[in-house]
Amino acid sequence: MSDSVKALFFDVFGTLVDWRTGIARESERILAPLGHALDWPAFADSWRGEYQPSMEEVRAGRIPFSKLDLLHRRNLERILPRFGIDGLAEEVLHALNRAWHLLPAWPEVPGALARLKPLYLLAPVSNGNISLMVDLARANDLPWDAVLGAEIAGDYKPKPGVYLSSARALDLAPGECMMVAAHSSDLAAAAACGLKTAHVARPDEYGPGTGEARPSVPVDVAVANLSELADQLAPSRPL
Amino acid sequence: MSDSVKALFFDVFGTLVDWRTGIARESERILAPLGHALDWPAFADSWRGEYQPSMEEVRAGRIPFSKLDLLHRRNLERILPRFGIDGLAEEVLHALNRAWHLLPAWPEVPGALARLKPLYLLAPVSNGNISLMVDLARANDLPWDAVLGAEIAGDYKPKPGVYLSSARALDLAPGECMMVAAHSSDLAAAAACGLKTAHVARPDEYGPGTGEARPSVPVDVAVANLSELADQLAPSRPL
Repeated sequence: MSDSVKALFFDVFGTLVDWRTGIARESERILAPLGHALDWPAFADSWRGEYQPSMEEVRAGRIPFSKLDLLHRRNLERILPRFGIDGLAEEVLHALNRAWHLLPAWPEVPGALARLKPLYLLAPVSNGNISLMVDLARANDLPWDAVLGAEIAGDYKPKPGVYLSSARALDLAPGECMMVAAHSSDLAAAAACGLKTAHVARPDEYGPGTGEARPSVPVDVAVANLSELADQLAPSRPL
Repeated sequence: MSDSVKALFFDVFGTLVDWRTGIARESERILAPLGHALDWPAFADSWRGEYQPSMEEVRAGRIPFSKLDLLHRRNLERILPRFGIDGLAEEVLHALNRAWHLLPAWPEVPGALARLKPLYLLAPVSNGNISLMVDLARANDLPWDAVLGAEIAGDYKPKPGVYLSSARALDLAPGECMMVAAHSSDLAAAAACGLKTAHVARPDEYGPGTGEARPSVPVDVAVANLSELADQLAPSRPL
């Protein structure tokens, strides 16, 4: 099966980077010196909780396509009052929103991608915008061949156009591309478009024991982490 | 000046890669065994000669945006009869068109980009499509942060939208981006959009003594080659 796969497409938030730890840590770094004492992981969860509803506005056509950075910013301003915070200066809001550009990769990710790079084209197919993907790649050594995904498609996953436009950008048939994600809904949508699928377990994505330890839909490959994916897809190139 | 520049945008054909040598060599490799004996550089020149007219069809709105690969293919079929060639099999036409994906970089390019990479975001802003840029990057070790340019803009340089959408994709103001090209027309259009500009001399682009040895328009930087650009923009990081 892996013989026919030419490109690996990666979900990013949750699959490659630990948004919960990153947002909690960076929010504390910025807000604690201003006198705010929050449950920082809860703050991260609350912010992330607005993610799908805000994209649904775009997917449903109620608002034009907007970069995820803009949705993140709107969502931030929506949740701050819930934590009793208002009146933050513009530069503080900007710095908070930039936290998404600085998220840390799960530890095995850079090494695993380096092993996969000689054998496959690698691209994020994320709902994050291009500049966000570029900054995450710089921060974590993610060796992308191109940045594909929502901003290029002008729509958000799991809309079919995001997966299909990414395959077309590389001149590949959907079946020559494999979507790699920690979320069964993403993989189900990719499979419906004809892509191959690989599930990566991230059981602690939303806090200990809260993420997907295994897929809830049929997939081509299911692995415990990205090193295991490299073992399976690039077996002749162990670390 | 270089302090305000955050990203370097590169023209590719002629500026980073030697299309004339590459097309001549690859065409000979494919067609000579089939019994064709052409003036191979003249064949490359003829093919490249159709480049601007074919993009003008898109820029003027007479045909919808088409990937450069498709324009190259149409242009190939247009010039073959001029060289007395017809009836080539589909796989031969396909292989010829792929020659654009395998062009060699000018010798100093990979090393110079490696020096610039720690200090600037690097992206092609080319009229070539994404898959073409990805293959050229793989073939020549071009360390792109993202692939920007015509396919993302849905139009061809020197239309302003190509430069401006590339800056927007990185969340940068036009003046924070520098267009690097061997063609004064490209740089004039970029400057009109507010980008900084760097001219790279490629005096042999269309054959000895035929390319631009110096810019014919005002530019911010003019260099003899990309190593000299790295000397100026990344002086503290010599090879």
